[in-house]
Amino acid sequence: MKEYAKRIERLQERLRQQALDGCMITQNVDLYYFTGSMQTGYLFVPSGGEAVFFVRRSVVRAQDESAVAVEPLGSFRAFGQRLAEVFAPLFRQAGSRKLRVAAEFDVLPVQQLQRLEAVLPDVEWADGSTVIRELRMIKSAAELALIRESARVIDLAFQEAFGMLRAGMTELELISGFELFIRRQGHIGLMRMRGYNQEVITGMVGAGEAAAMPSYFDGPAGGQGLSAASPQSASRRVIQSGEPILLDVGCCIDGYVIDQTRTAVIGSLPEDLAQAYDTSERIIRSVEEMLKPGTVCEKLYMHSLLMAHEAGLSDHYMGYGADQVKFLGHGIGLEIDELPVLAKGFSYPLQPGMVVAIEPKFTFPQRGVVGIENSYAITDTGFEKLTVTREGLIKL
Amino acid sequence: MKEYAKRIERLQERLRQQALDGCMITQNVDLYYFTGSMQTGYLFVPSGGEAVFFVRRSVVRAQDESAVAVEPLGSFRAFGQRLAEVFAPLFRQAGSRKLRVAAEFDVLPVQQLQRLEAVLPDVEWADGSTVIRELRMIKSAAELALIRESARVIDLAFQEAFGMLRAGMTELELISGFELFIRRQGHIGLMRMRGYNQEVITGMVGAGEAAAMPSYFDGPAGGQGLSAASPQSASRRVIQSGEPILLDVGCCIDGYVIDQTRTAVIGSLPEDLAQAYDTSERIIRSVEEMLKPGTVCEKLYMHSLLMAHEAGLSDHYMGYGADQVKFLGHGIGLEIDELPVLAKGFSYPLQPGMVVAIEPKFTFPQRGVVGIENSYAITDTGFEKLTVTREGLIKL
Repeated sequence: MKEYAKRIERLQERLRQQALDGCMITQNVDLYYFTGSMQTGYLFVPSGGEAVFFVRRSVVRAQDESAVAVEPLGSFRAFGQRLAEVFAPLFRQAGSRKLRVAAEFDVLPVQQLQRLEAVLPDVEWADGSTVIRELRMIKSAAELALIRESARVIDLAFQEAFGMLRAGMTELELISGFELFIRRQGHIGLMRMRGYNQEVITGMVGAGEAAAMPSYFDGPAGGQGLSAASPQSASRRVIQSGEPILLDVGCCIDGYVIDQTRTAVIGSLPEDLAQAYDTSERIIRSVEEMLKPGTVCEKLYMHSLLMAHEAGLSDHYMGYGADQVKFLGHGIGLEIDELPVLAKGFSYPLQPGMVVAIEPKFTFPQRGVVGIENSYAITDTGFEKLTVTREGLIKL
Repeated sequence: MKEYAKRIERLQERLRQQALDGCMITQNVDLYYFTGSMQTGYLFVPSGGEAVFFVRRSVVRAQDESAVAVEPLGSFRAFGQRLAEVFAPLFRQAGSRKLRVAAEFDVLPVQQLQRLEAVLPDVEWADGSTVIRELRMIKSAAELALIRESARVIDLAFQEAFGMLRAGMTELELISGFELFIRRQGHIGLMRMRGYNQEVITGMVGAGEAAAMPSYFDGPAGGQGLSAASPQSASRRVIQSGEPILLDVGCCIDGYVIDQTRTAVIGSLPEDLAQAYDTSERIIRSVEEMLKPGTVCEKLYMHSLLMAHEAGLSDHYMGYGADQVKFLGHGIGLEIDELPVLAKGFSYPLQPGMVVAIEPKFTFPQRGVVGIENSYAITDTGFEKLTVTREGLIKL
């Protein structure tokens, strides 16, 4: 309970800094972060005083789970009247000034905002996405423990997959083996992602040219997918000897995700791809040396870009041609696209409690993708590598 | 290609009827419906003339997949300039009147709308959700064929599950068996849902009191789930003899979902639950008689409500107490929460091409949920039952 009280307090501090009178939280993951409950409703956090979680359903479940006081939402009209009461002291304080209330504009559908505007016509709505995402960027000890648990489970799944991988099996068979294993260990069935239109079940398994296909997915290697109706991740392509097999698979245990990648081959890789794989490991080793409080996020990306350039692999780095992505890594936690982003323009200095997945990869059109990805927690003095799976090109 | 041209034409007709000058489509499922491609971008459909799909990534994939002309999106500023060109004839036509352009306000995040408003300051944005959802409500022959294929696969999975079900196994083990089977058959890994914050992987498997737990999920039986971080669907509860086991599991093959429920028991059910199950079958038989063009959707729900009342089961119908849901069924297609909804206030008359999942269920707190769910296509003269799995209480 203390954990959640602290989260609310930190949010209130930020609201006051930004001259916001409150924040109305509605997204399931943010609700869970601040209350411990993912039931449907509206969490109102004033810039000072008690937060209230107005719950549509299930009220019973929310009362059981939530660290914040729960009130049944009732009808939307009744909700409006109740909000007017809750907001009355804020209005009195504000005087003639309009109240400014933040909401999660990065995920909140327009219709939902319009409903809020209708019940609270005298409020000016502001975008609270960054405030919330920045708070969630720094993980508590309890959160780190949960990510470690996901890392433990996914390592067992990778070991299982290495044992099961055979030439002649399809990418889909391989990923469904992964999925069965992690599901039985408590994987919730998907990895939550905040980005609009982005879907991740368990990541991707891609071999040869299927892995190298460009995709809509906002990452260096989305994969071919099953059809135009699911155009990323594993396909029905048969895995062959002598080609790179990219295993970019994670899981979500008790809400928290781990994200990691290993490259495998049955037999051996062509020399240039093997060298590119080695470069990805050299990059991640070199980046690790910079992983400590104070390093500015974009420096990590720029550094990796330079190393890829020096290895003569600029054109292949993090995708190919028009489909290259412009980052080296991303925060993970309850979602797999959290802050900080390791990319140009992200000037956050690393801080203890940040958790980042770092994924230098090289794409060779028609041939495949090689690379490595580990997740790290930033500590007071450097980093803790959360990914425990063995490194190196996995030769089977 | 003709299929997609027809969809665009029908959309344009609706836009003209509603005095809209165009529609800007961004959601992945809607993009796929109108173009055949799910790549990331903006599909602009003017009320007359050529539609253009402005693609961020992957342009190559979109060019390969899309039935609509593809243009690379480029930078957002370049996109604004290009849009100004595309909109120029519409502006000329409009004269001093503001252009009215629709977008999917039910799913579009506020930030995304704000970006569009910034590049097109002279446009008045309108909610196009209902226009699009009403078009998608009527399925083509090609769409029906895909839903039949999903129905075929899920039937095989149910047969497999009936064979595998044992007292002593957990709900999670059972659903992961289902999931492995359908995944290998090409299930995309999740069942897409339009509703804000709603997540469905493959539905739920719930036994005894775990199935009867209220949940945030917008359906009659969400299930207990794995933890507060995933508070619906299967749990780690052990399945026992003599209790109802609700199998509400679907799959999504090549984009189209099927949704169905069967009730199983190891041994036999207490008399009152067995009778409630029979009532659910009586309701679905009786509702089938009304499944033909012209029947108003809400009448189906009201009729089922009356039958539940006459059976003395009002309090248990479609959930219990404050957590009852107020519908009998819902449209399915690319998403599992499509129109029409079989609920009060939905005055759509049934039409050929509609596909609905009908799910009368009874919840007994602490004891479990019983019921049945079939998916149906409305035909010219009545219905086609798409669900092919055997009915009746499944006794194991």
